[in-house]
Amino acid sequence: MAEILAALRSLMASHCPPLDSLVVPSEDYHQSEYVSARDKRREFVSGFTGSAGLALITKNEARLWTDGRYFLQATQQLSDQWQLMRIGEDPSVDAWMSDNLPREAAIGVDPWCVSVDTAQRWERAFAKKQQKLVQTSTNLVDEVWKTRPPLEVNPVIVHPLEFSGRSVADKLKNLREKLGNEKARGIIITALDEVAWLYNIRGTDVSYCPVVHAFAIVTLNSAFLYVDKRKVSTKVSSSMQENGIEVREYGAVSSDVALLASNQLDQDRGVSSGQNSVCEKDTSEEEENYNGLIWVDPALCCYALFSKLDADKVLLQQSPLALAKALKNPVELDGLRNAHIRDGAAVVQFLVWLDKKMQEIYGASGYFLEREGASKKRLETNKLTEVTVSDKLEEFRASKEHFRGLSFPTISSVGPNAAIIHYSPQAETCAELDPDSIYLFDSGAQYLDGTTDITRTVHFGKPSAHEKACYTAVLKGHIALDNARYPNGTNGHALDILARIPLWRYGLDYRHGTGHGIGSYLNVHEGPHLISFRPQARNVPLQASMTVTDEPGYYEDGSFGIRLENVLVIKEADTEFNFGDKGYLSFEHITWAPYQIKLIDLSLLTPQEIEWVNSYHSKCREILEPYMDKHQMEWLKTATEPVSA
Amino acid sequence: MAEILAALRSLMASHCPPLDSLVVPSEDYHQSEYVSARDKRREFVSGFTGSAGLALITKNEARLWTDGRYFLQATQQLSDQWQLMRIGEDPSVDAWMSDNLPREAAIGVDPWCVSVDTAQRWERAFAKKQQKLVQTSTNLVDEVWKTRPPLEVNPVIVHPLEFSGRSVADKLKNLREKLGNEKARGIIITALDEVAWLYNIRGTDVSYCPVVHAFAIVTLNSAFLYVDKRKVSTKVSSSMQENGIEVREYGAVSSDVALLASNQLDQDRGVSSGQNSVCEKDTSEEEENYNGLIWVDPALCCYALFSKLDADKVLLQQSPLALAKALKNPVELDGLRNAHIRDGAAVVQFLVWLDKKMQEIYGASGYFLEREGASKKRLETNKLTEVTVSDKLEEFRASKEHFRGLSFPTISSVGPNAAIIHYSPQAETCAELDPDSIYLFDSGAQYLDGTTDITRTVHFGKPSAHEKACYTAVLKGHIALDNARYPNGTNGHALDILARIPLWRYGLDYRHGTGHGIGSYLNVHEGPHLISFRPQARNVPLQASMTVTDEPGYYEDGSFGIRLENVLVIKEADTEFNFGDKGYLSFEHITWAPYQIKLIDLSLLTPQEIEWVNSYHSKCREILEPYMDKHQMEWLKTATEPVSA
Repeated sequence: MAEILAALRSLMASHCPPLDSLVVPSEDYHQSEYVSARDKRREFVSGFTGSAGLALITKNEARLWTDGRYFLQATQQLSDQWQLMRIGEDPSVDAWMSDNLPREAAIGVDPWCVSVDTAQRWERAFAKKQQKLVQTSTNLVDEVWKTRPPLEVNPVIVHPLEFSGRSVADKLKNLREKLGNEKARGIIITALDEVAWLYNIRGTDVSYCPVVHAFAIVTLNSAFLYVDKRKVSTKVSSSMQENGIEVREYGAVSSDVALLASNQLDQDRGVSSGQNSVCEKDTSEEEENYNGLIWVDPALCCYALFSKLDADKVLLQQSPLALAKALKNPVELDGLRNAHIRDGAAVVQFLVWLDKKMQEIYGASGYFLEREGASKKRLETNKLTEVTVSDKLEEFRASKEHFRGLSFPTISSVGPNAAIIHYSPQAETCAELDPDSIYLFDSGAQYLDGTTDITRTVHFGKPSAHEKACYTAVLKGHIALDNARYPNGTNGHALDILARIPLWRYGLDYRHGTGHGIGSYLNVHEGPHLISFRPQARNVPLQASMTVTDEPGYYEDGSFGIRLENVLVIKEADTEFNFGDKGYLSFEHITWAPYQIKLIDLSLLTPQEIEWVNSYHSKCREILEPYMDKHQMEWLKTATEPVSA
Repeated sequence: MAEILAALRSLMASHCPPLDSLVVPSEDYHQSEYVSARDKRREFVSGFTGSAGLALITKNEARLWTDGRYFLQATQQLSDQWQLMRIGEDPSVDAWMSDNLPREAAIGVDPWCVSVDTAQRWERAFAKKQQKLVQTSTNLVDEVWKTRPPLEVNPVIVHPLEFSGRSVADKLKNLREKLGNEKARGIIITALDEVAWLYNIRGTDVSYCPVVHAFAIVTLNSAFLYVDKRKVSTKVSSSMQENGIEVREYGAVSSDVALLASNQLDQDRGVSSGQNSVCEKDTSEEEENYNGLIWVDPALCCYALFSKLDADKVLLQQSPLALAKALKNPVELDGLRNAHIRDGAAVVQFLVWLDKKMQEIYGASGYFLEREGASKKRLETNKLTEVTVSDKLEEFRASKEHFRGLSFPTISSVGPNAAIIHYSPQAETCAELDPDSIYLFDSGAQYLDGTTDITRTVHFGKPSAHEKACYTAVLKGHIALDNARYPNGTNGHALDILARIPLWRYGLDYRHGTGHGIGSYLNVHEGPHLISFRPQARNVPLQASMTVTDEPGYYEDGSFGIRLENVLVIKEADTEFNFGDKGYLSFEHITWAPYQIKLIDLSLLTPQEIEWVNSYHSKCREILEPYMDKHQMEWLKTATEPVSA
């Protein structure tokens, strides 16, 4: 690790101008949350493997900023040379750079790996001391990264209408209407899931996210896809052509953005070029076209591409695809419901298997009984670890129809590891299952018809009264959010407190948001909405046909962690009244797997909450039955037996 | 009304430059919510008597903007010449002016009656069409207002330490520290309650608010009070002098702000001038002083005074007095608790009296029984009206120690009038009490030791199942907020939803915030915090020792209204844990008066909510007993009898 820093500092010194500091963000050229192996530059330089974080290297220091989900993990992974900066507690990266780097410092960053919003925020912070953000022409990390994984050539796949539910032509037509409404003549689309959604394509370029490394540009008359052409089969190519999409090389996006800026990108194209033109071209429209704006989402677009545009001609605004993608169509909603049923079946099958193994190998009292582990002597080969059991869970999922892989690295965590919110077990170092500890697993899969994400927390021995009280408080918050009805216009920030109030009662809390959108065979984390305790800069109200997770938790460092997560679909609520004619919304849960009754202190639940648990469990039974064998069904029946206070 | 508009339009036309439009805000020179009779200019021109609103007069139109509390009332009070603009539904006043007034229009306003924030927001909106905000040199409304009430000369009273709990010297010292921290050399204080709080003075210049029409300027070395000197007795004058406060004429503030801007206001003053100087003066400090900023709260300070300052030398930031005033000291908290006990006793005595009268005069079944009114024939002289009963309520309050008047116009409303959120009955037109209708009263008083504000909703006959369901939903929200515990850093916007969720369940809601701060023998509405569904521009977290009301409601136009309101004090919560070491907060209710059991559908309450009601009622009984005679105590005992589901 010391050599990497030394090599980078030497490149910083020889850079023109010499750099006082180098920022290494986590993101790739597309501002992705999950990136391919060769894009894990921040992980390479710092050793910290979490999905979010930012590394800053100065002449003498190295600091890593990350959020509450990763404080514990970062403490464990960072070497002495690195100092952890806790987001929300320590100064922000812009404040720190502005306060601690010298006057007129040159601070380097690869402009492809940083968004317009971020770069501009830094530049504002730098103004105070005349510091300067330097866009490096190459990525300095790539230069020192001798073992950087090679570029992969994975095929682009067309995502059929049967699963996408909406044609490319229809999506393009709608997008162009939105461009027209905003007086924009084109849009640069850089987010991988937006490109995939718009063009109904999928790929395997990034683990867990079925996307293709690609950019897109859409104008009123043309549509372009920038992708390694070796990935595009003749079949895919002709499908693109049918939709009026021109496929160009990935690297050509840079010069094409420059052409777009000077209005030369589609000057030779007119009505003739595609059936997707929304308007007949006449002189006044050409005029308008010429004066139109280029739409860029400042949170998504890299600074490199933005810098090629005339700032006066840019519409900096949330991409219209974010909301369009979030509002699932009926085919997507049905697909998601079905995928979650199969996924729930896999989870229950896993629990049945694990329950048996925990009793066999560790003499645990099991899922249903409360007794401390008997510490049966076990053969080393029988050992269950966080990794082996999560592999087994994947096996159950892989046996289901339409399975295409996991949707994120499974969080499979025993006891204290469960307190690491985004824990990712490694085969060599991970913990063994323990009949006397809580086991938390947060996992999901990609199915052709939908993406899943579920968390359950279980105990195979005797949970403590404190663990039960905490599990119950988390469950109460989880139910309160699930039960909410709210008028149109309400955003996720307003709802967030519902999941926290039962924990706050004890002086407990959790350092992460309560819910995120989820894709339709796309990214497991999807905007533009969010259920979070932080007010959102982009205040997007929840709307019918969006998806969102419901996942409160509680984490006791060094001891245990609890999280319960379902995926919800937002729907119109069937309220008795409709005050203010706003229309009211509610949630439909589409995740199916039981809560562990043993971990619930039933005396802390209200009659309504007990009814909620019983009704959810009865539905679980009914919905999952077709997937269960006799033994599994018996287990599920016991697990979902109605309870009373 | 037509003559007033004609006269104003004639003045607008002859103004130099001629005005296309004139804005008449509700506020006085101090941006007060409640203003004195002679400052009710907006009411005079429009006829609308609500406390909030803005009138806009153009050559051909007259429009009045107001908020959801007043939609119904404004519809009733505005003549044909006026058009109601609903805030939140119709375009905002800035958007409307910018879109509908002509290019380069001249829009006049008295710059003393508009805040810096508002004026600057308008100017930004006007830029689009080169419209211009014109500061009129006189108030045009005053010119046409022939019957404008004369200036009153009410004495300034010193608010003794026994009630204020903190000396002026201490408040000034603390204020000057804050000036120092922000590198400010002076502050202009324009809000009447801030002047009153800082200098420990009170007065009777504005109905309901025990304030004095005055400005203040405080520099690092000096303190000034601008007030009609006829109001200042020798005794008060010497008390001011003791605290190093120089009393100057009200009108002198204008020229003194100009002197302050050019650093000439206290140039002849040094350490010698008062014992309140925080620092010995030396050359470098003089230098610093000279370069320091002038602190102005842009939401409170009028545009007229701000315009006299060099914009580069102004610190536009929330007044430090807002938070200092909101954080009540122990003497103020005890005073508030005591005032609320006496006030609760008055409310119960009123209810006992009203219950008896409703039975005697109208043959009502009364507070405890459910039967439709017997429509007893009554003598015209016995008639109970919204005004006569609210006068009786005032009588009960006036009999209590330290009573100094009401804290706002009592909302005393029968049936459909209760749906008018800020209804204000008039003796000539108000409704008669009705044994078959809901009666809502929202009222409060000024006591020397504290300000009160309470709402209860009652029925003396047979409430409908729907009215009960609504009352119960409102009560559930009221309890949920009261019960909340939350970490330090939480703001009122986050908590607001707790009071709405039970209503949203039915598709019901209310068009007002859930809570406001309350003064200590000062304004009944006090910032800087708020419990509101609107995210606050000034995101002030709730803090221990603040006061806040808890007042959800439900209003059915033309039918009935329900509101329940207690005053809460924020205190440190006694939580079992303290996750994140933030410290947790909770509420202490200090209002004491029963809820009407007859209006509660007990089957809709959880066991915890029933326990809350019983425990609150048992405390009411205990706390109010010393004030009750035998008959009253019997009534109170019945009213607070424990209930079960």
